[in-house]
Parts: sequence; structure tokens; C-alpha cells
Amino acid sequence: MKAEDFQAAIKQFEDAVGKEWVFATDEDVELYRDSYSPLWGEAEEPIPSAAVAPDGVEQVQAVVRIANQYKIPVWTISTGKNLGYGGSAPLLGGSVVLDLKRMNRVLEVNEKNHYALLEPGVSYFDLYRYIQDHGLRVWIDPPDPGWGSPMGNSLERGGGYTPMHDHYDAVCGMEVVLPSGEVMRTGMGALPAAKTWQQYKYGFGPYVQGMFSQSSLGIVTKIGIWLFPEPEAYVSGTVMVWKRDDVVPLVEGFANLVSSGVFRGTTTLASPVWFGFGLPDAELDPIRASGSVKDLEDYAARKKVPYWSLPLFFYGPQKVVAAQWEYAKEKFSSLAGVEFQEGASYHFPLSKEERAKVTDPVQIGIPSLQIFGLLPPQSQGHIGFSPIVPMDGKALIDALTVFQGVHQELGAGRAVLTILSSFPRAFVLIDLFPVERDVEKNRKMREIYRRLVKEAAAHGWGEYRTHTTFMQDISNTYSYNNHALRRFHETVKDAVDPNGILSPGKCGIWPKRMRKAESGKA
Amino acid sequence: MKAEDFQAAIKQFEDAVGKEWVFATDEDVELYRDSYSPLWGEAEEPIPSAAVAPDGVEQVQAVVRIANQYKIPVWTISTGKNLGYGGSAPLLGGSVVLDLKRMNRVLEVNEKNHYALLEPGVSYFDLYRYIQDHGLRVWIDPPDPGWGSPMGNSLERGGGYTPMHDHYDAVCGMEVVLPSGEVMRTGMGALPAAKTWQQYKYGFGPYVQGMFSQSSLGIVTKIGIWLFPEPEAYVSGTVMVWKRDDVVPLVEGFANLVSSGVFRGTTTLASPVWFGFGLPDAELDPIRASGSVKDLEDYAARKKVPYWSLPLFFYGPQKVVAAQWEYAKEKFSSLAGVEFQEGASYHFPLSKEERAKVTDPVQIGIPSLQIFGLLPPQSQGHIGFSPIVPMDGKALIDALTVFQGVHQELGAGRAVLTILSSFPRAFVLIDLFPVERDVEKNRKMREIYRRLVKEAAAHGWGEYRTHTTFMQDISNTYSYNNHALRRFHETVKDAVDPNGILSPGKCGIWPKRMRKAESGKA
Repeated sequence: MKAEDFQAAIKQFEDAVGKEWVFATDEDVELYRDSYSPLWGEAEEPIPSAAVAPDGVEQVQAVVRIANQYKIPVWTISTGKNLGYGGSAPLLGGSVVLDLKRMNRVLEVNEKNHYALLEPGVSYFDLYRYIQDHGLRVWIDPPDPGWGSPMGNSLERGGGYTPMHDHYDAVCGMEVVLPSGEVMRTGMGALPAAKTWQQYKYGFGPYVQGMFSQSSLGIVTKIGIWLFPEPEAYVSGTVMVWKRDDVVPLVEGFANLVSSGVFRGTTTLASPVWFGFGLPDAELDPIRASGSVKDLEDYAARKKVPYWSLPLFFYGPQKVVAAQWEYAKEKFSSLAGVEFQEGASYHFPLSKEERAKVTDPVQIGIPSLQIFGLLPPQSQGHIGFSPIVPMDGKALIDALTVFQGVHQELGAGRAVLTILSSFPRAFVLIDLFPVERDVEKNRKMREIYRRLVKEAAAHGWGEYRTHTTFMQDISNTYSYNNHALRRFHETVKDAVDPNGILSPGKCGIWPKRMRKAESGKA
Repeated sequence: MKAEDFQAAIKQFEDAVGKEWVFATDEDVELYRDSYSPLWGEAEEPIPSAAVAPDGVEQVQAVVRIANQYKIPVWTISTGKNLGYGGSAPLLGGSVVLDLKRMNRVLEVNEKNHYALLEPGVSYFDLYRYIQDHGLRVWIDPPDPGWGSPMGNSLERGGGYTPMHDHYDAVCGMEVVLPSGEVMRTGMGALPAAKTWQQYKYGFGPYVQGMFSQSSLGIVTKIGIWLFPEPEAYVSGTVMVWKRDDVVPLVEGFANLVSSGVFRGTTTLASPVWFGFGLPDAELDPIRASGSVKDLEDYAARKKVPYWSLPLFFYGPQKVVAAQWEYAKEKFSSLAGVEFQEGASYHFPLSKEERAKVTDPVQIGIPSLQIFGLLPPQSQGHIGFSPIVPMDGKALIDALTVFQGVHQELGAGRAVLTILSSFPRAFVLIDLFPVERDVEKNRKMREIYRRLVKEAAAHGWGEYRTHTTFMQDISNTYSYNNHALRRFHETVKDAVDPNGILSPGKCGIWPKRMRKAESGKA
């Protein structure tokens, strides 16, 4: 792109959104770098050319039209807090960041039908505060940490903890600025006088909403999100078992609770002896390194550290949640040696004093940053390798063993693997890697990450989401029938965004004019 | 299309699927007419030119390629039982019906992760029988009647009764033959060695699945459907109130039960005095005709016929469902004069004797045809006008009043309106019309239907699904920003199906070559 064209485009952006909302100096642009980029400081690190922050739908439309005129790639962010996945930086260096942080209005919170209509820049903290200020008895479902936006997290298909934990699933109705600059409303929003835009998802004809998740097909400017009615009560407890293979009946029972809707939320199935976080343990570390199941089981029995622990929690009427936890205990009581530990329980609404004492705020819909306290002190940031694995104990042992093997083979030390039930009928396994400002360490980390992606794909486990650095790698694994799905995406992309201006390369989908250079790049 | 080209195409279809599976005589084609077409016997009734019944994915691909070669419109059906919505007949006369009834294999039923992988021609009865024969403890969720297919019903976004009642929502993973003839797998199925195709919906990148519901973008040849684990117990009961405006707190409480997940299923909020089915009542009919709320309330009080009745039912562990029903009764006990009636309750599995005594089989996942017994004896068939209205008592009174007004204004007699909770956070209102083999009566019915569509749209209520005869009318109401959503669909349609062969006109979306003639047709 010629410098004078770029300058002309910047001038037009300034006319569209106001001079103070276009950021094009090196100092400005520095703020949009991804602080936790696995490519930090390398030639390949994608640095934006500028950022533009519109304050409304019309300004977004104007920006898109200018981008079309100059064929400038635009990368959209809501609050830019998608850390670990690229933060506020684009995938393609030189893109203009479309920063929607100024569009931060809570347009509606409906307490009787339990939904919110939000602009992109509303954060979980903003929405929580709005609900508290208005005394509304609905819950949000913050992820951890809670500084991002409900819109961004839902569109990226992130997860929280309460019954509304599957964030994309809670989306109902969108307003989208298409690459043409036109505004479209999905679902019932396509009715001009719509009364149920945030209450019925599908509308009439093909259901398009999903095409705007993990997507480069449009810029979502309004989103409906379903909320959870403040429940009467919360009870929690933990199921603990002591042998490795106890995970098979444990997960079978858990899958039944999930599929039947008795358990609804994101829990962490942990193996404290096999994969636990924690300080170095002179006795345990060599056993873990040896990989002896029997020795780990002996340790578990001797130290009373469970081989597997599964926290459960229930939200609803007091008598219902009590019955649910009681039922779960009955159900798991057939497991040899099983033990149960009672956890926190609450009645809602909490008083101010009670709220101050809560140690697990995200569990009850209160956004928080306290997860940062759990990370190792030297950590600068992290990114996660996060494959979807079956909700099945044997499959889980396989996957954990395979990933641990990759770590050891590549001299990466032991993995700390987390198993989450963020989605209804499968587990997502998280393998966290530190990201440092050290080119050599990052290079090594990328090598391990890419090896894990390939190893997972060979076993039939695919990632649900990733950092921009690895989007192409992961897209490459979803290759059934010579990449039929990606080619379908490319066909739609070319039709809807013929100039290829929106988020080129996102999730491995490149516009036609860049495809030759990029397709198959890994 | 030239007759010799058509004959050449038929010959090629015969080569692809076998001579005995191509139906092109008048006698054959007669069987594919819609027995309940609102256009029966009129010049506009869409009669297919032929039908082709492939027995596998490769044969479907071959048929699609031949259709492309000759630009023959193809209309896909699974079992062809989509009665009330067009049955086995196409929207566009002269289309070739692609009849997938031979592809009726149950490919997998997984009892531990609770899903089925099915071909298009598997009916609810087939799947139920398979599960019974294999002694699997999972439930299907049949609609009423249950002779259609899980695939067809889910793709058309139909509903059942149990917790898995939102059928599109239970879909996880598809195999699709695209208009190009290529096979694509969605979600995790795009991983060649996929382990969670039926366990995790979204895959990586834009989530495409919805684009193949109520759609003409592809032919779904395999579908994953989530099942419900056989619960321990079922309890049911009915909440009854006596004044018209009691519906406001009644629905507010119900919306809370639904949004919080305490109630999960499709219930019918009935108004026996205002809208009930039943034989003529010399006292009630004039009151209904007068529209006097006070007189209706007096009748309700005097005859002990509730103004509103709301059946509730709960599926799960015995102690949990007991607590849920108890909680619901407590919750509604603040309504003046409320009464509760206990309903059926079951423990599962049922013995053969118990099963024989069940009077409400679809409530507990048993497919049935007994709904036909509820229709008036002279009925030949029916179609439904089915707008989505807010889950809100005041909105409901508005909608019922408006629709009743249209009936009366157009001399159509009293409407029998049904209010269903088929979807999580809104009601679907059903206004059933008889379809007869009488041109004049059908003409009148179409006039009323079209007036209802317009009246509903003016109030912000849109239909969720309709008969082929009315798809264009309904599409025309989803017109926000000069039909931005339909134009998006058309852009995608033209890109994916450039010859416009698949289901032209479905849900108002026409391929480019037919668009000029058809767009805006109402």
C-alpha cells in the first residue's frame, strides 16, 4: 500500500470518527501490541499500522466503507482484553485495529425475561455494576478474569462457571455491520418491530448467528445475551477418589449428571497427584516423573491427596439444590473409597458483609481478577493449548498421557493439565504455557505447541480456540475431505467480503487476494 | 427445460441410483403431492416432475451433479412426513424430489455420552425401536405425531416435549452434501479422526451448522442428535388460576422457572374458558363471542373451569423432581385462588404393563400418533400459523386479542389458539387452520393466514416456520434495513449454489436465476 494512500485513509478515518480517536503514531500503536505475543520482538510479530475507535454504528459503517475504498485490512476488538489469544493485536501485521471500546452502553437489562442487550465495549465489570446499581435480580456469567467483554467472550465462544457457562450458547440476536458497510440484524431482529429479538434465537430461514462467531464476516455492534435469574441458593461439594482408573466410573456418572441437566456449570476435574499445581514436592516429583501409576496411587492413599477430585455445585431453589447434591453423593457412593467434602453454600441475595467474604466470586457470577494470584510468580503471561476431548475416563487418560509424553519428549518439563467442563458434553483440556519476552524460549514454546496440535489431531482431538499465532495450524488440522469446511468458509468469505478487509487470516480463513500466499501456511 | 434434456437427466438419475428408484410417471408423482396443500387442485399447486431415492452419500452426490449439469431444481425430503409444512411436495412446481427415505440407518447410539448419529430416513419410531431393542437407557424426544424423522424435524427447528424439546438445539455435528456435490462435515467432524463429532458442537472458526437449518444450502446426510439419559422419575401437575390478568404473574413465575432451568420441556399454557377445544357449549359460546372478560371470569368461577391452566412436569432423580414440583407450588401459591392438580408420575424404566397404561406417551419420550384423535372428526388436515410471542402475560393477551380480532373481522369464526413453550425464552402461539380439498375454502384460509402474518409483523411477532405456500410471505416480513438478512442469504446462496439447484424459494430465498421473477412475490 502506498504511503500517500494510507495517509489519505487516515485522514478519512479522522473525518469519520474525530481526529482524537484515530491512533497512528508509533507510541499509540505500541499500546495495541499483544503484550503476551509468542512472537514478541520477532520480525513476524504482527504490529498494527493504526487504530480507530468509533462511537456508534454509523461510524463503524463509515470506517468499513473507507477500508473497502483503500482495501485496508481491519481487525476488530471489543475491549482488547482477549489476552492469551492475541489481545488487541491483529493476526496480520499492518492491519488497522477497529477498537470498539467507546461503544460501551448497556442498552437494556430485562429482569423478567433475563437478558441483556449490549454494545461491544461493555465489560463484565460494567454489566455487573449496572445490574447492582439498578437492583436487578439477574446474574451475569463472568469468565476468569472478568475484565473482557460479554460480547467478545461470547463471539470467541469462551466459557464461564455458572449454568450460563457456554457463552456462545447464551447469545440471542445480533446487529452486525457487514463488510459492505450495511447493517443487518439476525434472528427476530430482522423484523422491523421485533418484540423477541433477545428471546428467540433462530428467526426464519437459515440460522446465521454462528457465522459471526470466531469469524471475519462482520462486525457485531449489538448482542443479546441470556442471563440467569438470581437463584435462591448455591451448594457445593467435592467428590474424591483414589485410584487412577476410578476416573472411568467417575466421568461416566458426571456425564450423566451433565446430560440430564442435574449439573450445569464449569467444573475442573483435577488430578492433584498426577497433574496438580503447587509447590515442588520432594517425594511426589520423582514419582510423577517415573510415571508409575501404582506409586502415585500409594502416595494418594498415604497422603490423603486424591487421585481425582471433582467439585460439583448447584444453583436453584434451596430444596432442589440440596436434593441434587444429595443425589450426586448417592450416585457416586458406589465408587470404592469415595469421599465427599462439603464446600461453600450461599443464600441469595447476599448481604454486603457476606459478599465481602466470598472466596470464589466467579462461581456466583461476580467478576474478578483474582485468578492472577494463582499463576506462578515469575509468569509474564500465558497461552493455552486447549483441545476438546471426550467426556470419558479412558479417553481422558489417553489424552493426558499423550500430551504429557510430548512435553517430556521435547524436554519441556511436566505439563500442568486442567480438565474443564466448559461445554455440555465434552471436556476441554487446557495446557498452559508461559509466554516470556525471550525469543529463544518463545521459539521453543511454539515448537511444542505445534507438535501438540498435530499429535492431538492425529488422535481426533481438535482445539476449540487459539492465539492468533496458531490459528493457521489449527485450521490446517480440520481438513476432512481436502479442507471442505475451510473451502466452504472461503466461498462465503469471498462472497460477503470481496475486498477481503475484515480480519484476514482469522481462524485460518484468508480473503481471496491473500489466499495464495497464505493458504496452507503453517 | 426441454423435454429431451429432462429425459436425459432421468436416464442419468437411473444410472446413478437404479431404475427402480427413479419415479417419473404421473402415478408415481401423485404420491409426492402434499395431501394437505392449501393450493390443492389449483393451478399454483406445486407438483414435482419426478422423484429420486438414493441409498447413500455417493448416490446423493451423483444426483446433485446431474442436477447441476441440467440445472434441475431439487427439493429434499427425509421421510416426507412434514405434513402441514408441505409434506413431500416441493415449493417450486416441476422440481425433482430427492427422497432420502432409503437412507434410514441408525449409525450409532451412545448410551454414555447420550447421542445418536442418524441418516435422514430414520423415523422417531425407528430410533425408538432401535433403542428398545438394544436395551439402551436413553430417551428420544418425539414431536407429535412421531412419524417424521429426527433429522427433518431438527433441521426444520421443530419441537418435542421432554427436556430435549428444542430440536435444533440438540443437533451436534452434520455431514452435508453441498450444491457442488462435495461432502463436508461440520464441527469436530472436520477433523479426519474426529472423536467428539457428536459431543462438541462448534468446531473451530465460524459455526456453520445453523446455515443448514430451514435451508437450501446443502443436503444433510448424517446428523448427530443429543439424547436425554433415562431419568429416575417424572412428576407432573397443573397450576390453575381464575382471572384473566392472573396470566401476568403466572407467566412471570413460569419464565423464571424456565430461565433458571427448573422447568425444562414444552408445556401448553391453556385458557380453557377463553380458547379451549371442546364441544359447543350453549352457555360459554355467547360469552366468548361477546368478549366480556368479566363474564368469562364469572363462568370460570361458577363452573370451576380455569381461566388459565399451566401443566408442569419434571424429569430427573426422584428427590429432585419432587423438590422442583414442591417449589413450583410454593412459588405460585401467592396467586389469588390458585389451585393445583397432581398429574401422572412415573418411575423408570417402566415395565411393559406400566408402559401399556401410559396416556401421554410423548411426554416421556415414546413416539405416538394419538394426537390425531384430538382433531375434529371432519378434519382432513391442518396447517398452523405460528408466531413467536414474548413470554410475558400482557404481551400474550395482546397477541391473543389481535389474532382473535382478525378471525372475527374476516368472518372466520373463533380461533382455537394454543400457547406452547417449545423454545426456552419465548412462547410460540399456534393458530390451526383446517385444510380441505375445496378451492374456495382454501382461498379464504390463505387470505386469513396472510392477513395474520401481516398483522403479527406489524406488532413485532414473527413466524418460526411455515408451510411452503406461505414462506415468501413470512420472509417478506423479516425486512429490517431493506431486507438486509435476506440479501445476506441470497449472497451466500449464489456463492454456494451458483446454478440454484437446491430447494429454490425455501424460506423466501431464491437463486439468482429465478430471483427477478420471484423476489418480493407475496
